Amino acid sequence: MTAFRLIEIKEDIRADNSRLAAAIREQLRGKKIMLINLMSSPGSGKTSLIMRTLEGLKGSINLGVIEADIDSAVDAEKIAAVGAPVVQLRTGGFCHLDAAMVNRGLDALPETGLDLIIIENIGNLVCPAEFDTGAHKNAMILSVPEGDDKPLKYPLMFTVCDLLLVNKIDYLSLGDFDMNSLRERVLNLNPRMTIFEISCKTGAGLEAWINWLKKEIAAFRKGR
Amino acid sequence: MTAFRLIEIKEDIRADNSRLAAAIREQLRGKKIMLINLMSSPGSGKTSLIMRTLEGLKGSINLGVIEADIDSAVDAEKIAAVGAPVVQLRTGGFCHLDAAMVNRGLDALPETGLDLIIIENIGNLVCPAEFDTGAHKNAMILSVPEGDDKPLKYPLMFTVCDLLLVNKIDYLSLGDFDMNSLRERVLNLNPRMTIFEISCKTGAGLEAWINWLKKEIAAFRKGR
Repeated sequence: MTAFRLIEIKEDIRADNSRLAAAIREQLRGKKIMLINLMSSPGSGKTSLIMRTLEGLKGSINLGVIEADIDSAVDAEKIAAVGAPVVQLRTGGFCHLDAAMVNRGLDALPETGLDLIIIENIGNLVCPAEFDTGAHKNAMILSVPEGDDKPLKYPLMFTVCDLLLVNKIDYLSLGDFDMNSLRERVLNLNPRMTIFEISCKTGAGLEAWINWLKKEIAAFRKGR
Repeated sequence: MTAFRLIEIKEDIRADNSRLAAAIREQLRGKKIMLINLMSSPGSGKTSLIMRTLEGLKGSINLGVIEADIDSAVDAEKIAAVGAPVVQLRTGGFCHLDAAMVNRGLDALPETGLDLIIIENIGNLVCPAEFDTGAHKNAMILSVPEGDDKPLKYPLMFTVCDLLLVNKIDYLSLGDFDMNSLRERVLNLNPRMTIFEISCKTGAGLEAWINWLKKEIAAFRKGR
């Protein structure tokens, strides 16, 4: 188990958020480190996806993680336990991450040798959508038990994301979740959304996600 | 299907929120109308619980509903379809309700003859916990697929609520949700929390919830 740093964030620094976000993106591009901002409702499987992604990328891509949580460090503990570089941001009540908070997380991560950093944002479909964190890609998880109507209710989140991972597809048989309706609603809001159907529990669909990620990182490193 | 009003809320009026919340509570107490503020993550089953509660109280308690949503009116449509009085607040991006927003909803509801009003807050475990809406009781839903670790991550929500409804217990067999761990974590944060285990889909546990609600309303009407 590797150690992780815990950073207290007491102030919300919104000023110049967009400028700082752009600077973060540019700086990481120079270092050939891709940054993905992962958002979802509470309990949709953000940490599970990160654990599965660490497993899938092992030996080829070095992944670091910035964990954000209002009050606990349980997710960072799980990630540190498998030996990945991880920083825990404790937001102390804030409902989102902004670029300044991410910047503090980046400063605390050992950047040398990293190819990819995933930010696990606060579990919330509303506020995190409004703040540019400096990530190169925004990704979101929607889990099947949450229902196929979420794009109708949280449209901004579906609009700002490049990637949607529909998690817990092993729950499909239990409810009335309609994947076609979901896809239609999502693509109606955001025609360029890339969608994966996965189960972090059974492993279904994860190979496609990992392969896609490897290709994206290779293209990113070539400056595309 | 009865009609419902749709109110646009453009401004966040936080000033004097606590004072206004206290005034709402007092005024409704005078009218013998109990107000419950229902909160949860997106997709935990707030609307389903309200539909089940309407069904369970039918013929004995008159229930009105204030629906809040960032952008849609799909929940209010469902409630209006069964003939219950309902107002839709469209928050236009706000991630929570405050007392001023609730007050506008109350003004638009036909109060005559109502015994109980339930506010369906924005789906969010963070921000809604920070704002007193004027409700006599705060209730929250946690659905089984979200996991038993949520009290560790969203402690304020579990602290400000009087009632916890653990929904989707029909999903218990699929995952590793530990009800005893959940109860221990919740009661550690909030020893006075009343907990119900329910499934809005199968109907399990709902009779206990409805009976409890009827007793609470009877006591409330007697000024207790």
